[in-house]
Amino acid sequence: MCELLAMSANVPTDICFSFSGLMQRGGNTGPHKDGWGITFYEGKGCRSFKDPLPSSQSPIAELVTNYPIKSEAVICHIRQANSGGISLENTHPFTRQMWGRNWTYAHNGQLKNVQGELPVQLHFPVGATDSEHAFCWILDQLHFKFADKEPTATVLFTFIAKLSVKINALGVFNVNITNGQYLFAYCANNLHWITRRAPFGKARLIDAEVVINFTEETTESDVVTVIATQPLTNNESWHKMTKGQWHLFCLGESIASGQEVLMAES
Amino acid sequence: MCELLAMSANVPTDICFSFSGLMQRGGNTGPHKDGWGITFYEGKGCRSFKDPLPSSQSPIAELVTNYPIKSEAVICHIRQANSGGISLENTHPFTRQMWGRNWTYAHNGQLKNVQGELPVQLHFPVGATDSEHAFCWILDQLHFKFADKEPTATVLFTFIAKLSVKINALGVFNVNITNGQYLFAYCANNLHWITRRAPFGKARLIDAEVVINFTEETTESDVVTVIATQPLTNNESWHKMTKGQWHLFCLGESIASGQEVLMAES
Repeated sequence: MCELLAMSANVPTDICFSFSGLMQRGGNTGPHKDGWGITFYEGKGCRSFKDPLPSSQSPIAELVTNYPIKSEAVICHIRQANSGGISLENTHPFTRQMWGRNWTYAHNGQLKNVQGELPVQLHFPVGATDSEHAFCWILDQLHFKFADKEPTATVLFTFIAKLSVKINALGVFNVNITNGQYLFAYCANNLHWITRRAPFGKARLIDAEVVINFTEETTESDVVTVIATQPLTNNESWHKMTKGQWHLFCLGESIASGQEVLMAES
Repeated sequence: MCELLAMSANVPTDICFSFSGLMQRGGNTGPHKDGWGITFYEGKGCRSFKDPLPSSQSPIAELVTNYPIKSEAVICHIRQANSGGISLENTHPFTRQMWGRNWTYAHNGQLKNVQGELPVQLHFPVGATDSEHAFCWILDQLHFKFADKEPTATVLFTFIAKLSVKINALGVFNVNITNGQYLFAYCANNLHWITRRAPFGKARLIDAEVVINFTEETTESDVVTVIATQPLTNNESWHKMTKGQWHLFCLGESIASGQEVLMAES
């Protein structure tokens, strides 16, 4: 399994605090030592930092921890390999372009027989993970359904929720997907989220001896949502998502959600 | 205009020496202060570091200078903006997937009326540069010509050379393109290359007071080609490419080349 972390915010916000906690799980407080990656959006542009090294030992992770890149949307992943070897091409997040936007995706869980059950025709994986294959299949389905006409966000992400249910039937599919504007989270069995807004308080990391006082880091109007497989702080109240539940976040707020009926594993 | 740098090698090789010279041109010894980016291939995987900040002031450029990432293929670009504002989505190199490989591209020069002359139907740009638009057009043409059947390298890159001539008719098109295995360089007016192999000697950067003794950094069988808009060292003999010339490199060697007849600017 792996760990996911994502952020949606209404002002460019750095994720150094949450990232510094998560990174400890990549070889120190957690077993996720098979690489890590993070993608930051700045407007329509995005940039990724990736390393097949354990995050707790990675010089690039150290840079990302200490260099506050301000972003409205972030997706991060630390990996414990199951399908696909430890290599750069198997390291999440994966980014592809669609409708003139960068789409970024990270997955937690294992899927069986993706090649047989989720055939791809247009978008081909570079690496050997079940995760990237499922992402390619989603992009194929979006193309077949909507071609070059991007639908409204509600139509689009409701459709992606239905696709997630189908993928989840092959195993476990906790996922974060963003195009920089919207952030979609689908929970198979393991996803939590928290929205921070005024009045801000202090937060204490679980995985490192770090306390932050958000009052000093924010303004009154800031709204920031953080999503993670497991809560990153132990003095705040995180929402635990239920099986089959999804949320769509935009500018730090949950703007839509749904509860899908899960199919039995095939 | 911008500066290009690329590398093809037969063993994973770091590009710290060349990069540290080029980075000085991003605000110190050169005017290319509108962002920079570099993409490293490690097998089929690749990772990019990008910053819209001037490279001579970028903490990420400092990391890349000091952290020897070993790679068989690299493409790097520092930008002096002309078409498209200074932003992450307008920062080269651009990477897209095709035939299960990451394709990376960086361009030097200016092109007129790409939207009218090079219409795209399948691959859409994210940013606002003439460069990314031309890359999307190339990918569209590859899809229309070869669909999902990847041709041999010779057929493929000879075709890309023909496309380059057509693009070059809209202005200036010096370009580096790689899929991690092959590195293609097309010269409109400004591209140099050098192949280093045993017996190795010393090299002295033009843009910084740095001398390297490759004898200490290499083994007898290493073959490394570096391509750059302008030579990076002043004590070695670089090949100056002619207008309309292209080279295809693989594992550090030039394995094919050609000389196209340039069309007049439209």
